[in-house]
Amino acid sequence: MANLSTGRAVRLAARTGSLTTQTAGLAPSHLQANLIVLPKPYAPSFRLLCQRNPVPCPLLAESSTPGSFSTLQSHLIRDGTPLPVARDIDLRLDAPKYLVYRDGTVSHETEDISSLWTDEHVGFLIGCSYSFEGALAEAGLMPRHVAQRRNVAMYRTTIPLCPAGVFTGSTYVVSMRPYRPEEVDRVREITRAFGETHGEPIAWGWDALEKLGIRDIGAPEWGEPARTADGTGVFGKESDEGYVPVFWGCGVTPQEAVMKAGLEGVVMGHKPGHMIVLDLRDHEVYRG
Amino acid sequence: MANLSTGRAVRLAARTGSLTTQTAGLAPSHLQANLIVLPKPYAPSFRLLCQRNPVPCPLLAESSTPGSFSTLQSHLIRDGTPLPVARDIDLRLDAPKYLVYRDGTVSHETEDISSLWTDEHVGFLIGCSYSFEGALAEAGLMPRHVAQRRNVAMYRTTIPLCPAGVFTGSTYVVSMRPYRPEEVDRVREITRAFGETHGEPIAWGWDALEKLGIRDIGAPEWGEPARTADGTGVFGKESDEGYVPVFWGCGVTPQEAVMKAGLEGVVMGHKPGHMIVLDLRDHEVYRG
Repeated sequence: MANLSTGRAVRLAARTGSLTTQTAGLAPSHLQANLIVLPKPYAPSFRLLCQRNPVPCPLLAESSTPGSFSTLQSHLIRDGTPLPVARDIDLRLDAPKYLVYRDGTVSHETEDISSLWTDEHVGFLIGCSYSFEGALAEAGLMPRHVAQRRNVAMYRTTIPLCPAGVFTGSTYVVSMRPYRPEEVDRVREITRAFGETHGEPIAWGWDALEKLGIRDIGAPEWGEPARTADGTGVFGKESDEGYVPVFWGCGVTPQEAVMKAGLEGVVMGHKPGHMIVLDLRDHEVYRG
Repeated sequence: MANLSTGRAVRLAARTGSLTTQTAGLAPSHLQANLIVLPKPYAPSFRLLCQRNPVPCPLLAESSTPGSFSTLQSHLIRDGTPLPVARDIDLRLDAPKYLVYRDGTVSHETEDISSLWTDEHVGFLIGCSYSFEGALAEAGLMPRHVAQRRNVAMYRTTIPLCPAGVFTGSTYVVSMRPYRPEEVDRVREITRAFGETHGEPIAWGWDALEKLGIRDIGAPEWGEPARTADGTGVFGKESDEGYVPVFWGCGVTPQEAVMKAGLEGVVMGHKPGHMIVLDLRDHEVYRG
């Protein structure tokens, strides 16, 4: 794992089966991406869902044609030109783990979706907040789950998405990182620049739980519960040492939307936290 | 009023003081716009607020430089080119009525903001759902408030905006039009195409009231309550004749955001329903 310092190295490790864990902290400064793979008839609705909900669903790239898993059309435009997100990519193999959905419910987990991928499937890459964790760490604001080598905590919320075509009735999924209240302004400022990877937080502080409809900070629906700073207890259950939860839009939202809409057929996504890491580096996208 | 069939005619009528009423139904098929005018230091946060919340805050155009009220930079891009929104426009005079805010609260209503406009003010035009009412009418789905020559009903909701810089703590404002349940799919489809003027509805049906946090359908915060189809009672209070409320994002949202953020200094906006009508026609923007 020591050499997983580039996006390509992480992808190849996932592709060959030597990496099956979550990817927080790998290849720092490289953009990481969520994956959702939909039957072709749902693609127009999904593009519109992303346009209308760019904070939880920032669309980075998609299959250049239906069925394509290795040639992508980038939606990351800089100076009028699409930035290629990765050379040598295989959407069927390059996430360490995948979830497979059938008719809107989770069917099973796998490390390889190539046997399920058809010419009628369209893959979409959505920005991931792991992309700004390198910048937070550089600023002395290392996310706790990275320091503790855990998956981030992700929660279902009651905040509605703007509906789009077949996608109705869905809600935001959020990721959470604990920070001190006096750090929140700086955390907002640093992550604000990362427009296509969720940008600044959507809510913060303990009163955000009620606003977001999160009942139990210790029971995230995806990922792992955050621990206290000293690692001995569950964040928010024990002494919280003056930290508050800070919530960002999360690219698991499309998988939640697939379930809420009850989409028919085979849909595939990465297993939350187990991302496809891209070649793009944050300074190329946000400071280039 | 009979000749107010173009955007320019409506603007000139407002500019010369002969039009001081709301603009629903005027110049059918022409895009209508919400206005918000902010002190320059708030402009970057506002642009980001629009990017992060494109359904309630679709940014059409802004002052080409701070202080400019008649030269605009368009953000409506088609085939890589900005579409000019209007020749001969004066943001200080071309809305039939304005609201003036001081330090985040409403100060007064006026028909002319030229004495308050300074070189430090930046004007922003935001899409308005009046823009798709011509298309609805053409499809036999005439909005009731247009047929009854009333202002649309607009409501404050509890749905949070994604925060952006100084803009925190705000919520969606929505407009409402009654339709029969069996008409909702067609209404969604027709308005979906109008991406920069709020697009398809964000919620519909009586159970949407609770989701949006609207307590009283008969007491909108802006505009006028809808009436029953026969005009004799208040929609939702009397027999509703089988109609349900359908809600769209509304460009009054930025004015709500200014109040929630408590922005310092002089902020100006149109009076809700009293829009600036543009030269652009819907077929140029959405079917061109």
